[in-house]
Amino acid sequence: MIHSGLLTDLYELTMIQGYYYTRRNPRVVFDMFFRTQPFSSGFSIFAGLEELLQALEQFSFTDEEIDYLRQLGYFDADFLDFLRDFRFRGDIYAMDEGTVIFPGEPLLRVHSSLIEAQIIESLLLNILNFQSLIATKAARIYLASNKGKVLEFGLRRAQGVDGAVSATRAAYIGGAVASSNTYAGKKFGIPVSGTMAHSWVMAFDSEREAFRNFADIYPDKSILLIDTYDTLGSGIDNAIEVGLELKKQGQRLGVRLDSGDLSYLSQKIRKKLDKAGLTDALITVSNDLNEEIIHQLITDGAPIDMWGVGTNLVTGGSTAAFSGVYKLVAKEDDGFMVPTIKVSNNVEKTTNPGSKQVYRFYDDEGMCIADLIALEEELFDDQRPHTFYHPMSPNTFFTVYNYSEARPLLSKKMEAGKITAELPPLQQLRSTALEELESFDQTYKRIINPHIYKVSLSSSLKNLKFKMIDEYHSH
Amino acid sequence: MIHSGLLTDLYELTMIQGYYYTRRNPRVVFDMFFRTQPFSSGFSIFAGLEELLQALEQFSFTDEEIDYLRQLGYFDADFLDFLRDFRFRGDIYAMDEGTVIFPGEPLLRVHSSLIEAQIIESLLLNILNFQSLIATKAARIYLASNKGKVLEFGLRRAQGVDGAVSATRAAYIGGAVASSNTYAGKKFGIPVSGTMAHSWVMAFDSEREAFRNFADIYPDKSILLIDTYDTLGSGIDNAIEVGLELKKQGQRLGVRLDSGDLSYLSQKIRKKLDKAGLTDALITVSNDLNEEIIHQLITDGAPIDMWGVGTNLVTGGSTAAFSGVYKLVAKEDDGFMVPTIKVSNNVEKTTNPGSKQVYRFYDDEGMCIADLIALEEELFDDQRPHTFYHPMSPNTFFTVYNYSEARPLLSKKMEAGKITAELPPLQQLRSTALEELESFDQTYKRIINPHIYKVSLSSSLKNLKFKMIDEYHSH
Repeated sequence: MIHSGLLTDLYELTMIQGYYYTRRNPRVVFDMFFRTQPFSSGFSIFAGLEELLQALEQFSFTDEEIDYLRQLGYFDADFLDFLRDFRFRGDIYAMDEGTVIFPGEPLLRVHSSLIEAQIIESLLLNILNFQSLIATKAARIYLASNKGKVLEFGLRRAQGVDGAVSATRAAYIGGAVASSNTYAGKKFGIPVSGTMAHSWVMAFDSEREAFRNFADIYPDKSILLIDTYDTLGSGIDNAIEVGLELKKQGQRLGVRLDSGDLSYLSQKIRKKLDKAGLTDALITVSNDLNEEIIHQLITDGAPIDMWGVGTNLVTGGSTAAFSGVYKLVAKEDDGFMVPTIKVSNNVEKTTNPGSKQVYRFYDDEGMCIADLIALEEELFDDQRPHTFYHPMSPNTFFTVYNYSEARPLLSKKMEAGKITAELPPLQQLRSTALEELESFDQTYKRIINPHIYKVSLSSSLKNLKFKMIDEYHSH
Repeated sequence: MIHSGLLTDLYELTMIQGYYYTRRNPRVVFDMFFRTQPFSSGFSIFAGLEELLQALEQFSFTDEEIDYLRQLGYFDADFLDFLRDFRFRGDIYAMDEGTVIFPGEPLLRVHSSLIEAQIIESLLLNILNFQSLIATKAARIYLASNKGKVLEFGLRRAQGVDGAVSATRAAYIGGAVASSNTYAGKKFGIPVSGTMAHSWVMAFDSEREAFRNFADIYPDKSILLIDTYDTLGSGIDNAIEVGLELKKQGQRLGVRLDSGDLSYLSQKIRKKLDKAGLTDALITVSNDLNEEIIHQLITDGAPIDMWGVGTNLVTGGSTAAFSGVYKLVAKEDDGFMVPTIKVSNNVEKTTNPGSKQVYRFYDDEGMCIADLIALEEELFDDQRPHTFYHPMSPNTFFTVYNYSEARPLLSKKMEAGKITAELPPLQQLRSTALEELESFDQTYKRIINPHIYKVSLSSSLKNLKFKMIDEYHSH
C-alpha cells in the first residue's frame, strides 16, 4: 500500500485540484527539514530515504482509488483523469541515509511542479519522520550502552505492523545489531535473535528441566531467562548447572534478566558465573530500557553484555514523533526560480529561502567543526575562510579559517521520477551512521544536556534571508 | 503482510520448535490484559479486534518464508514442514471492539494448543496494543472537547504508514468524526475532511486572492486558513470578505487557526465573525493539540467548533505504547484444564489464574457500578448479591446488593480458526464506545486525576488465586 496515491491528506488533493483549475502549477523547490531535536538529543540520524524513493517511483492511483475519489464529491472528471495518469517526475536531492543531522538543515529537496511536490508531502513526511525518529533513538541507546550490543525487541508494542517493521530497519541503521522481528529480518536482511519467554520456563515441570531442554535443542544459542521464579535463589544456579554442561560441549552460556534491579542483579550474577568458571557467559538484560536507564547502568559499572530494548526503541518512548516539516523555498516566476520565505512572528519558524546546500566542515583530525547552509548557486570555495551567521540573528557570527574539508551533504538521488543514485545496502547505511557519529565531539553526543552543534548560514544566504524579511515587514 | 507467519518474535519460533520436539503441546488458555492505564486515564477503549481476527484467519507461511527460516540455521526440516502447513485453529473469546476497559481484566482469551497460542502472540499484541492506545487517546480528546468534532490529521507524523492507517481506524472508534487520511478513508469507509495549507495561501499573490479562489472551487467546503500572514491583521478580514460572498450563495464560511493563543484568537475571531453577520461561520483550530490543551480551551470558554488533532492523536504523544500483555492462565494436564499462575515479587504482576469471564454491573439508571472477574465455569447468578474482592488484597472487599444487570463482556469471536461472531461495521463500534462511555460516571472520565473504577475478583477466583499463591510459596 505504501505507494498508493491515496496516502495523502485530503487537503493536498483539494489544493491540487485548485492549482489544476487555476492553471497554477509552477516549478517549485520544497525543503524537508526539522525544527527540534527529539529526546532533547544533541543530534539526529536521517533515515527512511530508500523506502521513500521506492514509494515515489511507484506512487500512483488505481482505477478503484479514482472511483473512490469520485464519489467523495470534491473532484470532477477532468481532474480525476489527470490523477489517473499521475506519476511523480520530479528531482530529489537528499542527504545520505545515516547522516547525522541538525535542526534547520535541508535534509531533502524536491524540485518539481507545485502539484507533484504537494501530492507527495504527507507520504514523504510520514516515512522520513518515523524512520529518522527511530534511527536517532537507536543511536542514543547504542551510545548510552558504550557502543554495546543492542537487540531490538519491540514488535509487540510497536505502533502497528509497519510501525514494527520500519522501526526495525531504522533501529538497525542507528546501531542495533539484531532484531526479534522475523518479518523485518527477512525483508531487510537484518540479523534476527531472541532468547526465551517466561512461558517456556512455565511449560516444564521445573526451571532446570526447562533450561536443560532448551540447551539440548539450541546448544549454541542458549540464552536462559533466569527470573521466572527467583533470580538469585534458583534461576542463576539452574542456569550455571546447564552452563557447565554446555561448557563441556565447547558451548557458551547466556542468561537474561527481565526484572528487578539490573545493576545489583547483574553484578551478583557475574560473580556467580565467574566463580563457577563460566567467565565467558554473557549477560543480557531487558525490561523497559531506554537510553537514560542504560546510561545509568553503564555508569554503575553493571557487567552487562547485551541490551534487549523494545517499546522505547520502536516507538521513541518519551518523544513519539520527529518534527520534520516540508516548506516551499523557491517558485518559478516568468521562467526564473525565485526564492520564497515564510515569515513567522516566531523567528524560529521563519524559513530559510531558496534552494540550498549544506556543507559540513571538518578539522585536521577529521572532527566536525560546524555546518554551513549556503545557497545552491553560490560558488562555494572550500579553500578560503568562511563566516558562519546565526540563522536568526544576522549580527552573530564567527569565522572558520582552518578546516581540512567542507563536505556537501546533499546530492541528487532521483531525476525525473527515477532513482539515479546508488542506494547502499542497509549494512552500509549503518556504518555511515556509526562512523559519522565518531567525527562528532563527545559533548554533542552526551545523553543528557548535550552541547549544541552549530548550524549557520552563509553570508549570501543570510543577506537574502534578512533582505526578504525586511521586504516582508515593509509591506 | 499483516497475516505473515513471520510477524512473530524469533523466540516464539525457537520455543515452538522446542515444544514440537519435546512433544509438549497441551491445550492452553492465554489471557490478553493490560496493567496500567495509558495517559493516566481513568479508562481505556478496546480496539483492533477485527483486524486481528482477519489476520489470524490468514496467518500462514509462504514457501519463500519457510526458505528464509531454513537458512537461519535454527530450524530443521521436519519442523519447517510443520510450519508450512500451519494454520491457527484455536478459539477466541473477546470483548466487543469499543468496550470500555480497565487494568487486570481479560480482554481476550485464546483457547488453543500451546504452539498455536504462542505463535500468534507478537502479532496479537501488536495490533490490539496499538489500536487500543489510539482509541483511548481519541476518546479522551473527544471527551475533553465536550464531545465535539475531532478531526484526525496525523498522517505526516504517524509511526509509519500503517501507524497512520490503523490509527485512523482506532481514532474513529474512539470518537474522531473524520480524518485527513484518504487511504484510510477508502479502506475503512471513514469520512475524510481537510482544509488548506499555508502553501496554498502562499501560492497566490495575495491572501485574499487565495481565499477567493478556494471559495470559488469549493463553495460548500471552504475552511480558510487565516494565520499565514497576520491572523487578526489580515487573515480574518480577508476571510470575512469571502465569507460574505459565500453567504450570498447560501454557503457557510469556515476558518482555521493553526498558531498563536487559540483561546484569545478564537474569541476575537468569533466576535468579528458575529459582527459581520457570519454567526454560523465555524472555527476550526489545530497546532499540536492534545486532551489537556483542549480541556483548558473548553474551560476558558473558547468558541471553537472543530478540533484538528494530529501527532498526539495518532501516536499517543506522552504515552507511546499500550501495556497489554499475554499470559498463560490454564493448561491441559491428563486431559483436564488446570489453572496456572505466575507469581511475582511485585504483587501487581501476579496473574489471575484460570479461564475467566468479566461481568459489568449496572445500577437502575444504567450506570456502571464495578466490574467483577469470575471463573468461566462459575455458575454466575445474576439475581443474588455479589461480593467483590480486591485483586491483590483478599481481605478487602465490598458487596453489591442492588444492581439491575450484570453483563458478561467476553463472547466467542472465533472457533477453530474461523470468525464466528458478526463483526459490526466501524460506525457501530464507534457508537458502542461512545454510548458505553455514557454509562460511566463523569469522575472516571476526568482528564486529570480521575477516580479509579473498581475491578474485583469473585469469591471463587479470589479463593483459587490466593490458594495457588500459598502453594507456590510453600514450595
